[in-house]
Amino acid sequence: MTIQFYSRADSDLLERLQQQLPQHEVNGWPECPDPAAVRYAVVWGAPDDFFNGMDNLQAVLSIGAGVDHLLSHPGLPPGVPIIRLTDAGMADKIAEYVLYGTLRAQRGFYRYEQLQRERHWQPLDDIHAHDFTVGIMGLGVIGNRVGEVLQQAGYNVTGWRRSHTGGNSVECFFGPDRLDEFLSTLNVLVCLLPLTDDTQAIIDSAVLNKLPTGAHLINVARGGHVVDDDLISALDRGQLASALLDVCVPEPPADDHPFWRHPGIALTPHVAGPTQKQESIEQISRSIAQLDAGQTPAGIVDPAAGY
Amino acid sequence: MTIQFYSRADSDLLERLQQQLPQHEVNGWPECPDPAAVRYAVVWGAPDDFFNGMDNLQAVLSIGAGVDHLLSHPGLPPGVPIIRLTDAGMADKIAEYVLYGTLRAQRGFYRYEQLQRERHWQPLDDIHAHDFTVGIMGLGVIGNRVGEVLQQAGYNVTGWRRSHTGGNSVECFFGPDRLDEFLSTLNVLVCLLPLTDDTQAIIDSAVLNKLPTGAHLINVARGGHVVDDDLISALDRGQLASALLDVCVPEPPADDHPFWRHPGIALTPHVAGPTQKQESIEQISRSIAQLDAGQTPAGIVDPAAGY
Repeated sequence: MTIQFYSRADSDLLERLQQQLPQHEVNGWPECPDPAAVRYAVVWGAPDDFFNGMDNLQAVLSIGAGVDHLLSHPGLPPGVPIIRLTDAGMADKIAEYVLYGTLRAQRGFYRYEQLQRERHWQPLDDIHAHDFTVGIMGLGVIGNRVGEVLQQAGYNVTGWRRSHTGGNSVECFFGPDRLDEFLSTLNVLVCLLPLTDDTQAIIDSAVLNKLPTGAHLINVARGGHVVDDDLISALDRGQLASALLDVCVPEPPADDHPFWRHPGIALTPHVAGPTQKQESIEQISRSIAQLDAGQTPAGIVDPAAGY
Repeated sequence: MTIQFYSRADSDLLERLQQQLPQHEVNGWPECPDPAAVRYAVVWGAPDDFFNGMDNLQAVLSIGAGVDHLLSHPGLPPGVPIIRLTDAGMADKIAEYVLYGTLRAQRGFYRYEQLQRERHWQPLDDIHAHDFTVGIMGLGVIGNRVGEVLQQAGYNVTGWRRSHTGGNSVECFFGPDRLDEFLSTLNVLVCLLPLTDDTQAIIDSAVLNKLPTGAHLINVARGGHVVDDDLISALDRGQLASALLDVCVPEPPADDHPFWRHPGIALTPHVAGPTQKQESIEQISRSIAQLDAGQTPAGIVDPAAGY
């Protein structure tokens, strides 16, 4: 069975995949002697012509939890199942990042950074973790793990997701009708949504203005979720106290992008959830074995929903 | 029984103490009608003449875990037992602070702050929490709690303390002979020592140079533990990658103090372990009740050791 591999980020993954799947022929791009023989494509950031001639493709496996890079791919063969990573070690990394951002907001470190620059020694109010509410937009596998970690650290945590689903680690608001209610109580809004037609530009002035004055934003999802001008305006008005952003559009941002220099924004270069190589390759290999055996792996994407 | 209260920081504590101890007369400075009647002094930052005439003092209770402010007080009556706070809610606050500083070091946020200023998009190496070692100098009640929280967050944690004592939450090195060994493995050195003759200026070039190159310092104890010039030199040489300092000498530092402006230093205004009013007053009241009953409260200070 032939597997075609492509990763924009890391060729080391190819060797690991070959070791995990010795019974398969695993080719690394641009090596692709017979596109028609390819049964599985394992990809991150594939070029436009990648899928040409793959007429017998049975599944596409994303080396990542987000599949916006695949669903927007011009050459993706229609009707082929897409399978994404559901955790693969990333959840704990993202939880670390969000915990850092939450501590930074609760304990005022974002303010102390500014006060240090002004040479001003000014203790701020002491806020208890249990009086500090963090809301997670997008309560999937990763969001639930983030919620657990924040709860263990003593925070009050709630979540919001599109549709009614059980088994959440934290109190959850479901659907568009409950969004305002969810937003109204938050000290920190964490964006962990998939990027879809429904969630593109979802964090705009309307959403930001529903947060209590002086709230904080942490975006560890996609830059496309946030309307940049609305974010800047909310910070300038004091509606938002700070933003910690791991993503933006484009990446990297242009030299004159306001995110670089706004005093209310801390920007990191898309590092919240780095691919955990071994866990990712093991999950992908497990999914391929399940597909070979006619079983349904975890992480099947609903193209209509976009994740 | 008369109790004399003084706090430089917060007069609200006096009322809380009066409520907790209705059977005692609790006076707030400068009200002190009969110094000779004072049995207990409950103090933080008392003026030099505070103890004048208190010839029947049975105990001094510190509104804080550190007692350097008392042991250096020129009017402290000799031989009177001193009792300090042993946790009183501060441990969890300090653990939050140290967890923030550890995440900041491990995940490279201190570097991303600088890279943002330079408009440079540069992901750094992904370091796992379990490959990141935090060493706590001063493993008392607070240090042990900090160690627990860091271990729960996935870090490798060790501790160092002066003398052999059981019941520590983490692997512990004891005594001056093991200090070098302790330092040699650390990614982050956390100072939680009491300030004593033995620990004054303990964090000097000799100690900093025993850390692996590129380690980090978090000081949540006293500014007097650190030799400022040695710290600056270690940062400038790259021996230290960053320092997060909650304390310095004096507080606040002078406008031209290098801690304000050094790019490797994040400075906060002595806020790591703010007094938790209710917990502190409850612990002090409990200690007074134990003293009244002829029992020995926790937190008795050994003036020779200095804590």
